[in-house]
Amino acid sequence: MINTLFLPELREMLAENNAQGLAEFCNALHPSRTAEFMAGLESNEVWEVFQHTDPSNQADILSYFSRPKQVELVTQHDRQEAAAIVQMLPPDERVDLFQELEDDAREELIALMPAEIRLDVLRLQQYPEDTAGSVMTTDVTKLPEHLTIGEAMNEIARQAGQRETIYYLYIVDAEDHLRGLVSARQLLVGMGKPETPISEIMQTDLVAVHVMDDQEEVANKVARMDLLAIPVVDLERRMVGIITHDDIIDVVREEATEDAHRSAAVEPLDQSYLLTSVLTLSWKRGIWLTILFFCALLTAFALKQYEQRLEKISWLMLFIPLIISSGGNSGSQSATLIITALSRGHISVGDWAKVVVRELWMGLLLGLGLALMGVAASWLLITGADWKMIMVVPVTLILVTVSGTLTGSILPLMFEKLGLDPAMMSNPFVAGIVDILGIVIYMTVAWWFVGV
Amino acid sequence: MINTLFLPELREMLAENNAQGLAEFCNALHPSRTAEFMAGLESNEVWEVFQHTDPSNQADILSYFSRPKQVELVTQHDRQEAAAIVQMLPPDERVDLFQELEDDAREELIALMPAEIRLDVLRLQQYPEDTAGSVMTTDVTKLPEHLTIGEAMNEIARQAGQRETIYYLYIVDAEDHLRGLVSARQLLVGMGKPETPISEIMQTDLVAVHVMDDQEEVANKVARMDLLAIPVVDLERRMVGIITHDDIIDVVREEATEDAHRSAAVEPLDQSYLLTSVLTLSWKRGIWLTILFFCALLTAFALKQYEQRLEKISWLMLFIPLIISSGGNSGSQSATLIITALSRGHISVGDWAKVVVRELWMGLLLGLGLALMGVAASWLLITGADWKMIMVVPVTLILVTVSGTLTGSILPLMFEKLGLDPAMMSNPFVAGIVDILGIVIYMTVAWWFVGV
Repeated sequence: MINTLFLPELREMLAENNAQGLAEFCNALHPSRTAEFMAGLESNEVWEVFQHTDPSNQADILSYFSRPKQVELVTQHDRQEAAAIVQMLPPDERVDLFQELEDDAREELIALMPAEIRLDVLRLQQYPEDTAGSVMTTDVTKLPEHLTIGEAMNEIARQAGQRETIYYLYIVDAEDHLRGLVSARQLLVGMGKPETPISEIMQTDLVAVHVMDDQEEVANKVARMDLLAIPVVDLERRMVGIITHDDIIDVVREEATEDAHRSAAVEPLDQSYLLTSVLTLSWKRGIWLTILFFCALLTAFALKQYEQRLEKISWLMLFIPLIISSGGNSGSQSATLIITALSRGHISVGDWAKVVVRELWMGLLLGLGLALMGVAASWLLITGADWKMIMVVPVTLILVTVSGTLTGSILPLMFEKLGLDPAMMSNPFVAGIVDILGIVIYMTVAWWFVGV
Repeated sequence: MINTLFLPELREMLAENNAQGLAEFCNALHPSRTAEFMAGLESNEVWEVFQHTDPSNQADILSYFSRPKQVELVTQHDRQEAAAIVQMLPPDERVDLFQELEDDAREELIALMPAEIRLDVLRLQQYPEDTAGSVMTTDVTKLPEHLTIGEAMNEIARQAGQRETIYYLYIVDAEDHLRGLVSARQLLVGMGKPETPISEIMQTDLVAVHVMDDQEEVANKVARMDLLAIPVVDLERRMVGIITHDDIIDVVREEATEDAHRSAAVEPLDQSYLLTSVLTLSWKRGIWLTILFFCALLTAFALKQYEQRLEKISWLMLFIPLIISSGGNSGSQSATLIITALSRGHISVGDWAKVVVRELWMGLLLGLGLALMGVAASWLLITGADWKMIMVVPVTLILVTVSGTLTGSILPLMFEKLGLDPAMMSNPFVAGIVDILGIVIYMTVAWWFVGV
């Protein structure tokens, strides 16, 4: 979203070269709001505004710009100045930005960084997307075990200016093995006894995640335990970083959006809707539409088998869309309920028997409800109907609804069991399978009652 | 999820009345894990375990139980003891629990609370669901403006034991008007100059939300600005509470689940899947299935209009499911893309023209792709096909896909514009509308090419 409220004033200040006004604009507001007000400016105008503040504040503001805007800013202007800004970005944001740069721009910028930052970028770059390692920051306050409360307080006061969070302090041994956690709250409470060693007050029952853990599991853990941050360790339980609450919120939102897109058969986007090109979007939708098209093509082949039957009793055809959409809708409902319950950790694969029984009951109840309406619909639409004809649609609706609820619940559970993402069992996919089932059921029921 | 790992040990300790072991179990772990390990116990067993720890820790553990389990625990045991626990719950959790109790249990418990907690519960209860007021806590550290850094530090050290968060300190005047914010970080940095008044270091450009603001907007604000907590104010800008990062994560997850359910035409659940009864679930699905059934019934009436045409050219019928599912799928894709972009704040209603143009292009591109496959399908399935017959399905597919993308994108935007929840334009609903459009388009195109 672009906030245009301040654009005229900003442009006026730039035209007048009003240094005092621009400096105040850069420093007075929360950097996220400064960024919001600048989002309507051209890249070279932003750069001009940036001249009126220091690299640390520039980095704060930069981190709230959209990724493409960030790329534009750090590549189209003085490399030395750009490097000074990028250096001040939080490590996790820095590496995300680097991954979006063209190869030579990245090389040039990295060459201008101090050795330790270069190393940090290289290390963070190795972690695959969606792992704990890819969202963690290395900017963490580690303290040795032998400090006292008073020494620890002095230490965090010294580090407070640079660290992303200073509210959780991690206690490590000489090899960076995670030993415990002291919160700033505990230090403040213990202020009266500055001589107490922190090893006496530290929490040792720590929850940590592994660098290669899936980010969704990490988010579930943090959400369940209401943590401010969670430490990330490597295979030797050496502490390599932390994931903070704000990154967790981003993960939760990102995962929710991905799940929503998958459930509507859209490959998840890397950028927001308006920033993704029409061609990319068409591709991300087209691959799934094509798969679903072939799925739907099977319904045409199925109907071809029953062509004679349908020609003889032409009213059968009227209800085809009604029947397949009823099955598809109840299937999507079940699939979504199961997928969200799985991803929130409310059910696990072990609950499958309970789930199937519940879905069976729901299918029967819902099917019965639809069947009642189906009786009325048949009576209205079939010319010269007898009771046998009237029974076809209601009985089909019950069976189709039950197939829908069972397919919709079992498929995601199977995917979860196989270690695949259950959200891949998107609603249209479930609906596609239930469509074919629906046609076969419909024609079979018709054969029972009206004997064609 | 129920963790059964410790159940046998716990039951053994209870049988042996092992007071030391049970006390250690209650106090050694993070309360969320203690709760997880106890989730498999019966309510009276939990109560027995609780006898080995104090009300404050009991409340910490209780807050991690599922809501029905919480209700069971506080209603089925000694009222006096239950009141002591409930009193120690964070104010926002306390009021959520009270709202789940039967009237007389609530009255009895409330009567046992101190007057200030009674008042707090009554005040928090007024806020409607999904507003900032309904998720905030009143447990917040407020400080007067005239304090110095040293005094403020002593004050938070004193309060640290009770407060939910002490990392953001809000500065208020005598009437509770919000004047500024000092973070624990700023205090720690300023520790060297304890005489400095906090009014000199406090941030005054504060972002606050109003008690009646929608919780989703609040979450968007916090996420955008990476805040630890956001203050909640009333109409007179008096500070009434804060919403902390952990509650924001819950809001984001709850809203995402609600949106997912809505998009599959399920009324959002108040409880998790397994905790919701089959009857309630059937009701929450049934109301939407019924609405969608009437929507689908229109397709039957539409087909009835074309009955003669379909009888004469029976191959037309084969492609009905294929055509309506292609339209429905492209419509769901667009609806989901637009709904998620709206809820993440990536687009606004003002972008409608841009959105429509993009969706028109995507519809054409995707339709063209499907049309190519449609040519092959027609050639395969229509006996004795000439080029005119073969053109019917491909041309229909292009038009239907475009109707799908346009309907799927315009309807949610219209709902947003009207101040309704765009997620109400669920995928099955969009698909239902596109189904009817699809049949009309199909029959019209057939009339163009094969003249029936």
